[in-house]
Amino acid sequence: MTQRGLFITFEGTEGVGKSTQLATAADTLASLGVDFIQTREPGGTPMAESIRELLLTPREESVNETTELLLMFAARAQHLHTRILPALARGQWVLCDRFTDATFAYQGGGRGVSEDRIAQLETLVQGEIRPDHVVLLDAPVETGMARAKNRGELDRFEQEAVSFFQRIRDCYLQRANTDPRRYHVVNAVDSLENVSEQIRALMCKFHSNLL
Amino acid sequence: MTQRGLFITFEGTEGVGKSTQLATAADTLASLGVDFIQTREPGGTPMAESIRELLLTPREESVNETTELLLMFAARAQHLHTRILPALARGQWVLCDRFTDATFAYQGGGRGVSEDRIAQLETLVQGEIRPDHVVLLDAPVETGMARAKNRGELDRFEQEAVSFFQRIRDCYLQRANTDPRRYHVVNAVDSLENVSEQIRALMCKFHSNLL
Repeated sequence: MTQRGLFITFEGTEGVGKSTQLATAADTLASLGVDFIQTREPGGTPMAESIRELLLTPREESVNETTELLLMFAARAQHLHTRILPALARGQWVLCDRFTDATFAYQGGGRGVSEDRIAQLETLVQGEIRPDHVVLLDAPVETGMARAKNRGELDRFEQEAVSFFQRIRDCYLQRANTDPRRYHVVNAVDSLENVSEQIRALMCKFHSNLL
Repeated sequence: MTQRGLFITFEGTEGVGKSTQLATAADTLASLGVDFIQTREPGGTPMAESIRELLLTPREESVNETTELLLMFAARAQHLHTRILPALARGQWVLCDRFTDATFAYQGGGRGVSEDRIAQLETLVQGEIRPDHVVLLDAPVETGMARAKNRGELDRFEQEAVSFFQRIRDCYLQRANTDPRRYHVVNAVDSLENVSEQIRALMCKFHSNLL
């Protein structure tokens, strides 16, 4: 029987270097000979990407917070059941840019949606499925915001105030504290080379734990 | 204080004449001097209409049943909180083409999604809010399908088999049986004039009950 792949998610506020470090993780897995897919949330399938578009497009109509929450989980249900779970079952690892921790952090911590409502939807969509490992790239909000702004126009989420991102960071760190074996906090204000080194070391550790 | 408006939904399988009878209901309310809005689900706001597009567009990617369910309720949350509830609070009546009964009937009865999951989302999105009156236009599935086909190309839902629509009709009728004061079953195979007469009579009854 094929050994189930590992499900690894990357989390963090805007501008902490998730894309760069996902690329480092992917290079490391490739060099270790690990078969994997790389994907992102919200999105990851054509239908889920269409839902992502709906969520991220700035619009005149104010989006109800329950609407936003349900769209996030609708995209997640599609992504999880049509892409992530089939890959894991084939023995592939899955590297995913954001997952449900982001919903707890952004909609819960950021927008004040009750944690209970999010947890209820998490169970409805995922059952008992959780990422095997969550890599949390952590940096002070000001550092990340400055980097995000340098990349160009800000989307609807990025236009939010700094205090919003502070609550998101706090929520991520709280979640990481509750389960240190599954959450791996990486200091993203360290030099790029040092952060990348930590990511490479984590991937190697996850891989050797399976051997 | 303004008296809250009545929330009236129209339900039924394909081709039972919902659009025609909604127009009859609207004409009747107008002649009674009732201030009302007419809307539909999924949809009713620009954002919710975009979600409707996602749901109804035929696509190669098979849509996960939980995705479909969450998209329905995402559109509903937006519609309810940004359009229906504000109208009711202003004292307007709301005539709505389909609402949560359709989710129980189509996703529950039709696709076999558990009633519990639907009821859980109903509470999450609506709290205790339910339509004041549900007008169920009922006809044998074969009658409705034949009418829908005459209207032109079938959308993704209409392409489903007759047995699917039979389960939907059964579910609607079961729900109507549980609460006959709130559900009003109208025999839609009667002549157009007789069906319209019943709709006019219902609107007049709802109106005089409020006087």
